[in-house]
Amino acid sequence: MEYFAYPVANLIEEFSKLPGIGKKTAQRLAFHVLNMSPNDAQGLASAIVEAKKNIRYCSVCSNLTDKDPCSICESKRRDETYICVVEDPRDVIAIEKTKEFNGLYHVLHGTISPMEGIGPEDIKIKELLQRAYEGNVKEVILATNPTIEGEATSMYISKLLKPMGIKTTRLAYGIPVGGDLEYADEVTLSKALEGRREI
Amino acid sequence: MEYFAYPVANLIEEFSKLPGIGKKTAQRLAFHVLNMSPNDAQGLASAIVEAKKNIRYCSVCSNLTDKDPCSICESKRRDETYICVVEDPRDVIAIEKTKEFNGLYHVLHGTISPMEGIGPEDIKIKELLQRAYEGNVKEVILATNPTIEGEATSMYISKLLKPMGIKTTRLAYGIPVGGDLEYADEVTLSKALEGRREI
Repeated sequence: MEYFAYPVANLIEEFSKLPGIGKKTAQRLAFHVLNMSPNDAQGLASAIVEAKKNIRYCSVCSNLTDKDPCSICESKRRDETYICVVEDPRDVIAIEKTKEFNGLYHVLHGTISPMEGIGPEDIKIKELLQRAYEGNVKEVILATNPTIEGEATSMYISKLLKPMGIKTTRLAYGIPVGGDLEYADEVTLSKALEGRREI
Repeated sequence: MEYFAYPVANLIEEFSKLPGIGKKTAQRLAFHVLNMSPNDAQGLASAIVEAKKNIRYCSVCSNLTDKDPCSICESKRRDETYICVVEDPRDVIAIEKTKEFNGLYHVLHGTISPMEGIGPEDIKIKELLQRAYEGNVKEVILATNPTIEGEATSMYISKLLKPMGIKTTRLAYGIPVGGDLEYADEVTLSKALEGRREI
């Protein structure tokens, strides 16, 4: 990095800490910033600071929000008897985009993963149980990722909720719409067969 | 973007203005920032502001620098009778890394491009002529990119410098080292043939 003046080297270093940004891309971004107008550069820097300062977890669903409770939890038009449990705030966006779900969410912020030392107490499971216990919840839809950790986390939550008389469901597995059977992996394909429905 | 709280949407928007950063990547970066420690986020924001504030053009060679003249122009160990002309500050880094050049640089900050309305007066050609006129310059190495614009810019500069009795040279064309003849394009290959040397 000796070839760059310190402020440039520092900016490259900071950019390269971001996920998916290698050294070359970090250089490209840094030089782009140096060519920006001072206002635009300030805009980017402020957006980072402001987002970090104003965004926190919703006290109800743990989704990211700038007001508490978040706009979904607060909405009168959502059905509070359904809770969809996801790993990550991005998953909320993905499900919202389908426009098929009108209940509330609960964001776990991770999955149980003994390999990485993440236990049930490290993610927002306690808060979910609290909601299920206090609220008027009929069904909890477990929408964690179809990975080993996601499965295990869903199973764990399901075992805690069932004794409370709450219905727990899991997203369906199967071949992705628009996909090609030829390229589907065996596990997905066997799940798709297993879950076949009469038409 | 309606799914995101404003500060998040704004941060995504700001990231997606950067080159090569699409909407999905911008989202990933934004969520990464939200998961950073406040100190790290502040570090990134400050690096942007500081780089923008402290980096300017060297008054001699127009390279990016945090002090004026830049460390290369100021160095007593560089041979000031050679000037290597490049399009972009990144090209200076590329040439410095070869450790083969010990002269000074001149950064044009672009190329002449009538298609985009960029004329000779829009890039740092005037400053180069001034240096050639005032200084003790023996040779100007034209290291603009091997593109139509880069070629044209080199030709233009060469025609202005030659009458001043200054030798002007151009980087050699040829097959890249470690490359494969099979994959070399025809123009490169014919240039490599044309420029063949006895061994």
